[in-house]
Amino acid sequence: MTEPALPSHLVDKAVADALAEDLGLAGDITTLATIPADAQMSASIAARAAGVICGVDLAIAAFRRVDPFIKVSVRSGDGAAVARNDVVMKIDGAAGGILTAERVALNFLGHLSGVATATAALVEAVKGTGAKIVCTRKTTPGLRAFEKYAVRCGGGHNHRFGLFDAVMIKDNHIAAAGGIAQALSAARQSVGHAVKIEVEIDRLDQLEEALSGGADIVMLDNMTAEDMKQAVAANRGRAVLEASGNITANTVRAVAETGVDIISSGWITHSAPTLDLGLDVH
Amino acid sequence: MTEPALPSHLVDKAVADALAEDLGLAGDITTLATIPADAQMSASIAARAAGVICGVDLAIAAFRRVDPFIKVSVRSGDGAAVARNDVVMKIDGAAGGILTAERVALNFLGHLSGVATATAALVEAVKGTGAKIVCTRKTTPGLRAFEKYAVRCGGGHNHRFGLFDAVMIKDNHIAAAGGIAQALSAARQSVGHAVKIEVEIDRLDQLEEALSGGADIVMLDNMTAEDMKQAVAANRGRAVLEASGNITANTVRAVAETGVDIISSGWITHSAPTLDLGLDVH
Amino acid sequence: MTEPALPSHLVDKAVADALAEDLGLAGDITTLATIPADAQMSASIAARAAGVICGVDLAIAAFRRVDPFIKVSVRSGDGAAVARNDVVMKIDGAAGGILTAERVALNFLGHLSGVATATAALVEAVKGTGAKIVCTRKTTPGLRAFEKYAVRCGGGHNHRFGLFDAVMIKDNHIAAAGGIAQALSAARQSVGHAVKIEVEIDRLDQLEEALSGGADIVMLDNMTAEDMKQAVAANRGRAVLEASGNITANTVRAVAETGVDIISSGWITHSAPTLDLGLDVH
Amino acid sequence: MTEPALPSHLVDKAVADALAEDLGLAGDITTLATIPADAQMSASIAARAAGVICGVDLAIAAFRRVDPFIKVSVRSGDGAAVARNDVVMKIDGAAGGILTAERVALNFLGHLSGVATATAALVEAVKGTGAKIVCTRKTTPGLRAFEKYAVRCGGGHNHRFGLFDAVMIKDNHIAAAGGIAQALSAARQSVGHAVKIEVEIDRLDQLEEALSGGADIVMLDNMTAEDMKQAVAANRGRAVLEASGNITANTVRAVAETGVDIISSGWITHSAPTLDLGLDVH
Amino acid sequence: MTEPALPSHLVDKAVADALAEDLGLAGDITTLATIPADAQMSASIAARAAGVICGVDLAIAAFRRVDPFIKVSVRSGDGAAVARNDVVMKIDGAAGGILTAERVALNFLGHLSGVATATAALVEAVKGTGAKIVCTRKTTPGLRAFEKYAVRCGGGHNHRFGLFDAVMIKDNHIAAAGGIAQALSAARQSVGHAVKIEVEIDRLDQLEEALSGGADIVMLDNMTAEDMKQAVAANRGRAVLEASGNITANTVRAVAETGVDIISSGWITHSAPTLDLGLDVH
Amino acid sequence: MTEPALPSHLVDKAVADALAEDLGLAGDITTLATIPADAQMSASIAARAAGVICGVDLAIAAFRRVDPFIKVSVRSGDGAAVARNDVVMKIDGAAGGILTAERVALNFLGHLSGVATATAALVEAVKGTGAKIVCTRKTTPGLRAFEKYAVRCGGGHNHRFGLFDAVMIKDNHIAAAGGIAQALSAARQSVGHAVKIEVEIDRLDQLEEALSGGADIVMLDNMTAEDMKQAVAANRGRAVLEASGNITANTVRAVAETGVDIISSGWITHSAPTLDLGLDVH
Repeated sequence: MTEPALPSHLVDKAVADALAEDLGLAGDITTLATIPADAQMSASIAARAAGVICGVDLAIAAFRRVDPFIKVSVRSGDGAAVARNDVVMKIDGAAGGILTAERVALNFLGHLSGVATATAALVEAVKGTGAKIVCTRKTTPGLRAFEKYAVRCGGGHNHRFGLFDAVMIKDNHIAAAGGIAQALSAARQSVGHAVKIEVEIDRLDQLEEALSGGADIVMLDNMTAEDMKQAVAANRGRAVLEASGNITANTVRAVAETGVDIISSGWITHSAPTLDLGLDVH
Repeated sequence: MTEPALPSHLVDKAVADALAEDLGLAGDITTLATIPADAQMSASIAARAAGVICGVDLAIAAFRRVDPFIKVSVRSGDGAAVARNDVVMKIDGAAGGILTAERVALNFLGHLSGVATATAALVEAVKGTGAKIVCTRKTTPGLRAFEKYAVRCGGGHNHRFGLFDAVMIKDNHIAAAGGIAQALSAARQSVGHAVKIEVEIDRLDQLEEALSGGADIVMLDNMTAEDMKQAVAANRGRAVLEASGNITANTVRAVAETGVDIISSGWITHSAPTLDLGLDVH
Repeated sequence: MTEPALPSHLVDKAVADALAEDLGLAGDITTLATIPADAQMSASIAARAAGVICGVDLAIAAFRRVDPFIKVSVRSGDGAAVARNDVVMKIDGAAGGILTAERVALNFLGHLSGVATATAALVEAVKGTGAKIVCTRKTTPGLRAFEKYAVRCGGGHNHRFGLFDAVMIKDNHIAAAGGIAQALSAARQSVGHAVKIEVEIDRLDQLEEALSGGADIVMLDNMTAEDMKQAVAANRGRAVLEASGNITANTVRAVAETGVDIISSGWITHSAPTLDLGLDVH
Repeated sequence: MTEPALPSHLVDKAVADALAEDLGLAGDITTLATIPADAQMSASIAARAAGVICGVDLAIAAFRRVDPFIKVSVRSGDGAAVARNDVVMKIDGAAGGILTAERVALNFLGHLSGVATATAALVEAVKGTGAKIVCTRKTTPGLRAFEKYAVRCGGGHNHRFGLFDAVMIKDNHIAAAGGIAQALSAARQSVGHAVKIEVEIDRLDQLEEALSGGADIVMLDNMTAEDMKQAVAANRGRAVLEASGNITANTVRAVAETGVDIISSGWITHSAPTLDLGLDVH
Repeated sequence: MTEPALPSHLVDKAVADALAEDLGLAGDITTLATIPADAQMSASIAARAAGVICGVDLAIAAFRRVDPFIKVSVRSGDGAAVARNDVVMKIDGAAGGILTAERVALNFLGHLSGVATATAALVEAVKGTGAKIVCTRKTTPGLRAFEKYAVRCGGGHNHRFGLFDAVMIKDNHIAAAGGIAQALSAARQSVGHAVKIEVEIDRLDQLEEALSGGADIVMLDNMTAEDMKQAVAANRGRAVLEASGNITANTVRAVAETGVDIISSGWITHSAPTLDLGLDVH
Repeated sequence: MTEPALPSHLVDKAVADALAEDLGLAGDITTLATIPADAQMSASIAARAAGVICGVDLAIAAFRRVDPFIKVSVRSGDGAAVARNDVVMKIDGAAGGILTAERVALNFLGHLSGVATATAALVEAVKGTGAKIVCTRKTTPGLRAFEKYAVRCGGGHNHRFGLFDAVMIKDNHIAAAGGIAQALSAARQSVGHAVKIEVEIDRLDQLEEALSGGADIVMLDNMTAEDMKQAVAANRGRAVLEASGNITANTVRAVAETGVDIISSGWITHSAPTLDLGLDVH
């Protein structure tokens, strides 16, 4: 019931666009020239390194879009932790179709599994603290919905999806509005009652103004662990506290131990290396 | 004349799609609530780390699409090497528009500069050898044209753009066709005279069959440096020789010194970390 | 700063689609046959009835898309209350272009001004109470972003924009989850920290479970005024209270006087009659 | 054979767009959090008020697009008159899919049934006269094809679909062309032989010029009943006569009794209130 | 006022699609490699054979979309008859942009001028008779609106644009409906009053049934000249008479002299050879 | 294995667009009015003239998109030579659907079979020489991928698909680069190792510079047969030699006999008349 759910209504277009990018006007000229139309193939996609899988339905859609008769059987679904050589899926059907779709399937699977794997590393590092790992809007253009999903597959949570679904008041907004209180008041008047409001602060002495202004969430931007601890104490549960700034696998534990509720990381979406996966023909 | 050229006909759609992803139906509700419509801003995008810039026109398009009156002045264009704190571009205009477009602009710029920077590292590593660094089809779905361009900005070259513009005969094609000679012959008969044909081999004893079959390019897949040297010697300039397989900044020099013409790397597109860039308001 | 803001990034496509619908393959065959290419025209769009204007930028975009040299000067912008015969905008330029774009411009303007006018009637009716009028997801397919904006122009506020930006737990969700507490807990675990959670109840005795479960908003569905008053009293400011169900201009005042924070109405978007507007040639 | 036919080639895109509008990047976060993936549901859509149904295939398409295994059984098809509490369709399948698609299905069904119901009211009012009720180009942007179909479901007929499929010469065209005769002559020379030509007149003394110029249809704009009767008499069956201007359920009978052939109404498309329909879970 | 008018709202998409087809992901790699960015060019497009020009605005749009600063000056506009070596347009601007857009510009111009030229040949052949040359729905997929326009540029007229804007009852419709009278009656009841109805007959003895059934147009399909003459005599001006079937430049005069009103030709759109045009650099 | 392969990933969009063009907003109003919904039909598409078939899958897709239950059985597949009256496909199913899709199916089939037939005529004319017939970029906008495929069905081969997949250095590129050698060198440095480079020359004395510059292909533009023979002799197999310029069925044999490898023709795509095909109902 609370398993991460793929935004399935976006899969078809994403896969069609990726295939169009790879096929151009002429299609897979190598396969068309060398693989007999009736050649069959049994293959599997396996991990070449340990990680967390994400993107299985996109890979399936790539194979099926090229040839609807290709059969795929999933062994390690989205969110599954795999070891090196673990099989992710078995693929059976026309050899030509499998080879034509292979790269698009692997590109989605490798990229999203990379994001899930990076997320899982941070989640593991903060285990036992109450902190949640969340992603940011620092995503790859065109893939935000899928990368947000990959973060959930890795055990993380999502911050807002875009500029549209939550208010995030940063220093420039504060300056333009004339102060934290004024910015919060303007936002509360402007947006609907179903929208949360977050304020970003970089000094402890801004905290009280944010809290008394009714911020739902306060982001502690690039603060020291000591300052974050003080913020947690001063907050007394009034707002959700979010830590942000140069979060890495090395630094995240110390941040989590300050007692903040949320730790946001751009690294898990914008810099996660691909998870190495390959297609093996049997 | 030989500067890398952005596929400019693709910029508008890519930027519009990325903005749509970030703006949703409601737009930038924070900025709309807090920034006066007549507020002006002078800002700059600067590097937070050293690297090679790519994506300047995409960033400009993001600002201009949100507000056509925003003025951008480029200080470090695509292909420029920047040091930490170097300014990439100055932006002047309506504060609201600049803040609304900021993240989309930085997401493109950071991702593509990351690819260019990773490429440049490999190019630097092979300096003085004759080897060229090229990318593969292991690209981020939807961004292939831009990532290919980023590779050129980093001093690399492009392999084929997709399944459609060159023949690449791999082990499965060879098996299905009945051998290297048969696969080459089938490909030559099938494709046009303007298409190059590459064969992938993983054993030295396959080289002669590939060459006598008329392969334009031979990929040496995961071969030892010693085998690659022997391949170079045996080739005697007949085909372009391409090395492939687990190329990293650490291993690439040794590969280049075997005398191969081309070294292809998936890492520069699928695993390059973002180049850290930020927008500073003056 | 808190004026309602048009989702301007959506205007171009909406207007292009509406023009395509009206022009087909052959275009405006009447105008092409009868209006000389060099004929000029001065016209104005005026109200034929009192109301609140919305959609001015869509109308301008329709004229400009047909002929970029048409000049439009706005007299009554979005949100302005107009009386019968008040001028909304003056239009000068090629007669052919003005006549071709006229219907698309008026269709947008009439429909959205109708929504704004209906909203303003409810807002006026609750004046002096603290209640805010908000819209629902009962919108015209394809026009949600613009209708939500029209509600803001009429003095109302927006509820969530879609299924994606807030949680709304209704009776079927409660039944499936096993109770209000369970549904709230599942939602809180599943969604990000920037998302608000609303529960719909239709009996007073459900209120305490919703509040103790941490609902940000509680919707009182089709309750009597008496029950709503009791809910306001019991709530003691813990959650935002929203009244819903058969809200009309006749009933809304009584609902507002119960002390609820929010009154949501489907009628203002799904059944608002068009505001009668016409184009007059001078 | 003469039943109104849905423009079925337009259904898929309309439904996909409406679902995209409602689902955004994150999808139905409430249902994903609270409804178990294997929960089944039996539901029905029923009328909460009397009216004429239209849009059944769009509703079905909404459910099926979210989950192709949902089964729908129609009880009151397009064009059927329903009383309060009559069932329109039964829906069985995955609870999550049904709840996610519910609002989009109801939005189409309610809006189009509203148009059909409004049309049927006018058709009923003119029963026994020879007059036909037709719609105009005053439609909701993006929904014209479906609203035109809804008019047919309500027993009405369609006027031209756009600027492209019939000539409609109005006062401005007449003025620019130099008179009714000149405008008719220019139109006849310009457009193909398969296109009908209509002239709008607002004074009886223009009728003869329109008829002798060969107009296929003459629109009597905002004329008195007395003038319309005289026009019918003078016409002697030469052209189709169309009455237009402020047609309501109250006024339409008197207009019909003048003997005009056609009565056109903008109200049935631009101001018809939604037909109240709801989904009941069993 | 009655000059053929380009469906200008369709130009942008058609040209963008054609350029995308030619540029792919990598763009014009030859020009990018060999033409300096600052190289300027003066060129002209000239006819290599006599004909009628059509498509000038599409050619201009191709150049401008690649480089908005390219200047084009038209010498022979749409509908102009040109002799061999006549200049159609002068083009000045960046050499790279001109060369990149050249082929797309010429492909549109050559194809549409070919249609206009073929039409003009038939128009010339029937000069002095009252017959009009019209096109059919036998058009190139995707280009119907432009080919219909090219027919007008060549002095021809348009038949219906698609299945949607006029009724055309053929033998299969007649058989299914139970006869000509029944089909006409069904059509008249089903379609709006602004739609014309045509019946296709292939025997003289069907004419009276078509006329008494109220057909607006009767198509005489593959009849002999003698039968057509008899049909003209029997018709006495009641319906528009259209001749169809194997119309060529050789046969069209004899058909026109039978006195039919309209002669329709598929050949002018589906088989017109391109008009030979070339770009000359000065 | 080396049969021409349709770019099947492009079929759906091409057919959907063509149907949209023909159906507009109202659909096939004739069929809707006259054909009972339950009427069945057996039909076949037959050749009215001899030729080579191409486009069968597009025709099938047209029927199936209108009605997925229509059954099609192919008798003469793509590439098959047909005589007059030969059946191409049998179609069984709902009469309405078959009649609605008929024209779109025939338009694709006729156009592409026309291209295949024209190609086959040239291929036949050069039989026994070693020359291959190839097409150019002089294609119908929007249909390039299908026309290139039709050329393959007619026994021809494809030149580059666009500006993106091979370098073609023409006189203007040579002039701008400062000579053939400079242009070749610039191209070789700029483009990837998987891209072939062609140079166009129009004088024999340019050949050696092209060959020594490393051109993969040399186009002999509008040369005399005598000059082409000399070029073949001088080339000694170093580059592929391509003849171009005013190739017709009458001239092509003489060109082929000069010994050139490749003969390119624009005529087979831009001026091939449709192959006459018709639908017969049984």
